[in-house]
Amino acid sequence: MNPTRSPRHRVAILGAGFGGMAAARSLSRLPVDVTLVDQHDYQTFQPLLYQVATAVLPAENAAHPLRSLLRGAKNVGVRRGRVERFELDDRRLRLDGGGTIEYDTLVVAAGSTYGDFGVPGVSHHAFVLQSLLGAVGIRNHVLRQFESAALDPAGADDGRLDIVIAGAGPTGVEMAGSLQELFSVLRRDHPQLADATARIVMVEPAGSVLPQYGPRARRYAERELRRRGVELRLGTGVARAEADHVELTDGTCIATRTLVWAAGVRASALGEQLGAPLGRGRRVAVTENLHLESRPEVFVIGDMADAPGPLPHPQVAQVASQMGAHVGRVLRARLSGANAPPWRYHDKGQMAVIGRGAGVVELSRRYGGLRFGGFMGWLAWLFVHLVYLPGPLNRLAALSAWLHDAFTRERAARLILERGSPELGRGSRWSDPASPVSDGSGRHNPTGEDLRRAA
Amino acid sequence: MNPTRSPRHRVAILGAGFGGMAAARSLSRLPVDVTLVDQHDYQTFQPLLYQVATAVLPAENAAHPLRSLLRGAKNVGVRRGRVERFELDDRRLRLDGGGTIEYDTLVVAAGSTYGDFGVPGVSHHAFVLQSLLGAVGIRNHVLRQFESAALDPAGADDGRLDIVIAGAGPTGVEMAGSLQELFSVLRRDHPQLADATARIVMVEPAGSVLPQYGPRARRYAERELRRRGVELRLGTGVARAEADHVELTDGTCIATRTLVWAAGVRASALGEQLGAPLGRGRRVAVTENLHLESRPEVFVIGDMADAPGPLPHPQVAQVASQMGAHVGRVLRARLSGANAPPWRYHDKGQMAVIGRGAGVVELSRRYGGLRFGGFMGWLAWLFVHLVYLPGPLNRLAALSAWLHDAFTRERAARLILERGSPELGRGSRWSDPASPVSDGSGRHNPTGEDLRRAA
Repeated sequence: MNPTRSPRHRVAILGAGFGGMAAARSLSRLPVDVTLVDQHDYQTFQPLLYQVATAVLPAENAAHPLRSLLRGAKNVGVRRGRVERFELDDRRLRLDGGGTIEYDTLVVAAGSTYGDFGVPGVSHHAFVLQSLLGAVGIRNHVLRQFESAALDPAGADDGRLDIVIAGAGPTGVEMAGSLQELFSVLRRDHPQLADATARIVMVEPAGSVLPQYGPRARRYAERELRRRGVELRLGTGVARAEADHVELTDGTCIATRTLVWAAGVRASALGEQLGAPLGRGRRVAVTENLHLESRPEVFVIGDMADAPGPLPHPQVAQVASQMGAHVGRVLRARLSGANAPPWRYHDKGQMAVIGRGAGVVELSRRYGGLRFGGFMGWLAWLFVHLVYLPGPLNRLAALSAWLHDAFTRERAARLILERGSPELGRGSRWSDPASPVSDGSGRHNPTGEDLRRAA
Repeated sequence: MNPTRSPRHRVAILGAGFGGMAAARSLSRLPVDVTLVDQHDYQTFQPLLYQVATAVLPAENAAHPLRSLLRGAKNVGVRRGRVERFELDDRRLRLDGGGTIEYDTLVVAAGSTYGDFGVPGVSHHAFVLQSLLGAVGIRNHVLRQFESAALDPAGADDGRLDIVIAGAGPTGVEMAGSLQELFSVLRRDHPQLADATARIVMVEPAGSVLPQYGPRARRYAERELRRRGVELRLGTGVARAEADHVELTDGTCIATRTLVWAAGVRASALGEQLGAPLGRGRRVAVTENLHLESRPEVFVIGDMADAPGPLPHPQVAQVASQMGAHVGRVLRARLSGANAPPWRYHDKGQMAVIGRGAGVVELSRRYGGLRFGGFMGWLAWLFVHLVYLPGPLNRLAALSAWLHDAFTRERAARLILERGSPELGRGSRWSDPASPVSDGSGRHNPTGEDLRRAA
């Protein structure tokens, strides 16, 4: 399983997202040895993180162990770690902790993060939906606001229950709708807060929600969100974030302790180390076969890739998966001395859910161009996400959680999951960074640090 | 919902374990106002924590929100916090953060923790199965040992894969059996470790496993554990714990980075503040109606209570639940000026699971005195725990996880759930004690601090 000792062609894949996993699967049928490097030993199913943050799903159900997903792929090894440095000329990766990986072909699929556009305070005060623990952190924080407000219902109108969501793309919309539903559960939990104000304000510089959707879907989503009590501030952005309020570009100020940042996707800062031209959002320019112009052995795929095309491709799972599969095609061709056809994006369409019983679906023209919303849109969304969510237990858990939520309006996972009383032993200290129990977390992606500096 | 403003009889319950919840339920039918205080907003289902630690269940599935459990009990309010000080003469509790709760009747049900018997190093190096995050911490730690060993299979025999479990009671036995099964999954995950030594050593000063069980059950459990590869060191205790090894009382030394402490239950240190005589294991002496001799308005129940009887009662859920229910009876009698009959423990029996397809059940005489083990014992255990596990989604999740585990020998929840790359915003910093996102954790129970000092 150690490619560096193998005589066969060695492939290193960086990142186990939709792109990296698709690449690993497509390479599992080729006579190559693959090492998949990720900071986690599991694949995070990003599309359902908002359900972890809003207490629909347990954290573990929005992810699945990589080695279980790759059990059939005997030539793929998983290496948990983060990249410290590329040594492209020597075709070598340096990992943190001193390890190295030598490769003949490198696939960089480190994905993207959120950018704060340099808006002051955002990188320090905003929450993002990017990791399992990040999602649990949002859940804990929101639940804690209600706990503290319940102790002083009179003073609960100071905005501590209000939430500002920046960005009205699918993530922002899904988060807003699901938070609104969580709020109604929490009002039942805390009768003394029945009349307290708890607003969800969605801020979007573009003139509408779901900007990348068609006019009908946009109007439907706007109507549904408003009907459910979400306050829309369209044509407005966040100007500055503080611990207890957010200032908007239109000069207004919203008292809140919870800013969810769902805007400004930015490709991983690893791209800067590849010595290739960077495009919009720090995406790396690649050829029609998804490798660097200067280094055919280095592929860049998914959110990080700026592939040739009339328009930049959307940074979504579909594109990443198709790019990952294409890497397999190109490598197969190369190994047999042939040429692969250029990569083409086959857009299947897009879908988003606004909340219980409400979704929008837009199939691409090649899939019939069908566009519909409402309850059918919701069902379609559930079905597609059940199909793509990895792990049979996760699917069962998601399906039962959705049905339970729809019929009982309960959120069973609304636990403030954090350290309780200090206990005997390390078991209780796992969340303490100083403890051995929380060491070894990795990253390929220093973006966070950039943002810390920006903060 | 704020009892201190109510003219009605005010009851404060400390702790939402089996005892506290039973008391809350029994009081929900009386004309009293109840405040249930716990450090968490959920009830932890302790009996399944070992399955969280061994990657069978997601953490959220071994707990359920208190307010959802008490939805029907309109006169019960939940207060998340920890007790700083009792003011028994003024019938007042001081909570951390300055809050106070005035009561007419107090029910102390703060449970127990593990004691280290003063064995050096234990309180610093040992893991305990006491909280959800503690269980996740054990899971992370064990998985991390295999990750690090996989990078250096040759050096993996330095004991980093070995686990020492102190205590062969039900918790220790269940942990050992389930860890052994997890190991076989992890060997499949890491083929390079197929031949590496990964021992599970169970240390028990008593002469046998499950000391509180009958001879047949003890022999069966021993045979099964050995058959499954668990190494038993009976008649031996832990003499000292270090980061990389454990010294036993028989002079031998075991190289390990993982000591699981499942011995020495010790009642909450809150008992020391009640001004009542303390019995074995720091249990508080109470009358036959479970209140302090000197203060009839202060009840002490569950693991903390030392109720009169030929023998001390076992510190188990059964006893706690029956004591909690009895508090309701006593209070009803008092409110109507009558006397309640003394509390009597109705022992139903005991059961433990050794692993897949193997359990032991011992019904008490009044329930037929039936004793059986093996597959039927396992099924009985599953059934009973499904019935008592709170939350329909939790039951479904547990049932499906057990079937999935039994048929596929997979452990779907084996994720190293810890901080990944630093991200934009606080969402990623939830586990950082310095972050607002992890503030507000409470405790009723300074025991941990005692142990820190002991460490």
